[in-house]
Amino acid sequence: DFVEDIIPEGHIAHYDLNKLHSTKDAMKLKEHVLIATPMQTFHDAYWSNLLKMSYPRSLLELGFIIPRTPTGDETLKKLEAAVKNVQTGKVEDRFAKITILRQDSQSFDKLGEKERHSLAVQKERRSAMALARNELLFSSIGPSTSWVLWLDADIVETPATVIQDMTNHNKPVLAANVYQRFFDKEKNENSIRPYDFNNWAESEKGLEIAKNMNEDEIIVEGYAEIATYRPLMAHFYDKAGKIDALMALDGVGGGCTLVKAEVHRDGAMFPNFPFYHLIETEGFAKMAKRLNYEIFGLPNYLVYHIEE
Amino acid sequence: DFVEDIIPEGHIAHYDLNKLHSTKDAMKLKEHVLIATPMQTFHDAYWSNLLKMSYPRSLLELGFIIPRTPTGDETLKKLEAAVKNVQTGKVEDRFAKITILRQDSQSFDKLGEKERHSLAVQKERRSAMALARNELLFSSIGPSTSWVLWLDADIVETPATVIQDMTNHNKPVLAANVYQRFFDKEKNENSIRPYDFNNWAESEKGLEIAKNMNEDEIIVEGYAEIATYRPLMAHFYDKAGKIDALMALDGVGGGCTLVKAEVHRDGAMFPNFPFYHLIETEGFAKMAKRLNYEIFGLPNYLVYHIEE
Ligand SMILES: Nc1nc2c(ncn2[C@@H]2O[C@H](COP(=O)(O)OP(=O)(O)O)[C@@H](O)[C@H]2O)c(=O)[nH]1
Ligand SMILES: Nc1nc2c(ncn2[C@@H]2O[C@H](COP(=O)(O)OP(=O)(O)O)[C@@H](O)[C@H]2O)c(=O)[nH]1
Ligand SMILES: [Mn+2]
Ligand SMILES: [Mn+2]
Repeated sequence: DFVEDIIPEGHIAHYDLNKLHSTKDAMKLKEHVLIATPMQTFHDAYWSNLLKMSYPRSLLELGFIIPRTPTGDETLKKLEAAVKNVQTGKVEDRFAKITILRQDSQSFDKLGEKERHSLAVQKERRSAMALARNELLFSSIGPSTSWVLWLDADIVETPATVIQDMTNHNKPVLAANVYQRFFDKEKNENSIRPYDFNNWAESEKGLEIAKNMNEDEIIVEGYAEIATYRPLMAHFYDKAGKIDALMALDGVGGGCTLVKAEVHRDGAMFPNFPFYHLIETEGFAKMAKRLNYEIFGLPNYLVYHIEE
Repeated sequence: DFVEDIIPEGHIAHYDLNKLHSTKDAMKLKEHVLIATPMQTFHDAYWSNLLKMSYPRSLLELGFIIPRTPTGDETLKKLEAAVKNVQTGKVEDRFAKITILRQDSQSFDKLGEKERHSLAVQKERRSAMALARNELLFSSIGPSTSWVLWLDADIVETPATVIQDMTNHNKPVLAANVYQRFFDKEKNENSIRPYDFNNWAESEKGLEIAKNMNEDEIIVEGYAEIATYRPLMAHFYDKAGKIDALMALDGVGGGCTLVKAEVHRDGAMFPNFPFYHLIETEGFAKMAKRLNYEIFGLPNYLVYHIEE
């Protein structure tokens, strides 16, 4: 897939995109995966989970984008220290490439989980997130990237084989089910609950709502104020079900979503403007569909969002 | 704008997109420009025009994408030879970086000027061109690219200062006026005529046509079959006018169009699906507008398309 530079001193790089593959045998075929993470806060648990992943680091590229806010300054320091630690360690333990970007577009400083989830703040916040994701994507995807794993900075627990498992499904876009661990005070025990409601299948009601909206209105999923009756993947988790069960989706979140690089290269990005009344990761899903790609989710494949 | 790798041996690159600028003093401020060219045929005249450009080559990145067709094979050979010639020459004459991509998506083999301009073939051909442009864009734009000059492979004549001149206008998207030299048999003299009709301003009629179209229909400009009465920049050339006259546009072609890299990084790409009933470069213009960027053209600034 990567044809060695014909004249290295002249900075010429040849790539045959036609021979660049993303297959179900990603690891065996040495396919490069870019892990793309917009990072407002550096969580140790994110980093240690990343380091536990068993996909060979020589095939992993990391891309981070950090907001230009005081919180971002802190985050950058911590990320740099963590990165330095790995990349100056044993050669075989290093990642193939790490890109750290400081955001150009508007960023929001840290909001609490409640605040940032209020419906009023969604359009602005998610528009800003869309731009951050696009900046990261355009600046870190390379000509030898086969897959992009969108992994939020507050995903603190995944199976170590998450990349092998997800690539093995060989889908253009595939979302894991993002849950959250918490302590259930009523039952007095540790428990889990659904976290990300952006993974959904379209509904009649959702289409009807969209149809009656003004051009610039958006639907954001997971709010009682807009009852779409869309089947949400978060609710389809079946503890007794097969871990590799698939569910067709129309919208995705960015928590832990694997994308074939060709989907992005064909043009699928994160609209910050209403695209079929959807923005950011949900708009991306719609755009991928317009580019004739299918989207799936793994309802029984859980990854965990931090509890704040 | 480019912070030196903190640990070069670890392949870490830091970029502060916030400090990456695209200004009217591009050359003085050493801003990197990516010249992006989808190339079906290698024309010597394109190459010699490129070599005549006076923007410093140390600030120029070149990106090419070549179709996977027999014509493409020929083109690749010629391009490689030309590139090798420059990049093994004097160090100060070399381009900063050259990326040559072989296309993954569908390509059309060479069609004659008449054939490829027939309305029937437009949707399919321009959809394919959109994917090619996206593949090229996503794989060659780097974190230190300030501007992207879309320059078609059959643009054989521009002023040598084209990059300085166009960046100096400091516009998010700016299209030169693409003309064609020809021999006027009636008058028995050399003459010029408009070539690219994709640079246009929206019209009432155009909006009305779009409004009455099915979701998946597209308008391609420059066809008598669809009379949009849109003001076409090609018709606004005024020989006696100022060379730096500006005209607000809503659609652009890809012949010779300069784009601030941040417009692309925010997500503006070339839709291969109808986006407000527009595709490819015209769809790109609409997307840039949705991202709140303004689009202009230079009616009196001529560049020339080859005559076949
Ligand atoms: N670069 C950047 N990243 C952000 C910004 N806001 C949030 N993030 C990151 O984007 C991801 C999603 O944001 P988050 O606030 O966790 O969204 P939620 O979990 O859906 O409520 C996380 O990885 C955050 O660290 C921002 O303004 N800029
Ligand atoms: N990569 C690629 N480039 C192409 C293909 N078809 C045309 N081109 C190039 O795309 C640009 C525009 O195409 P062209 O046929 O000249 O369009 P026109 O001048 O608008 O009729 C030129 O630079 C062509 O060399 C294709 O299938 N793949
Ligand atoms: Mn989160
Ligand atoms: Mn042409």
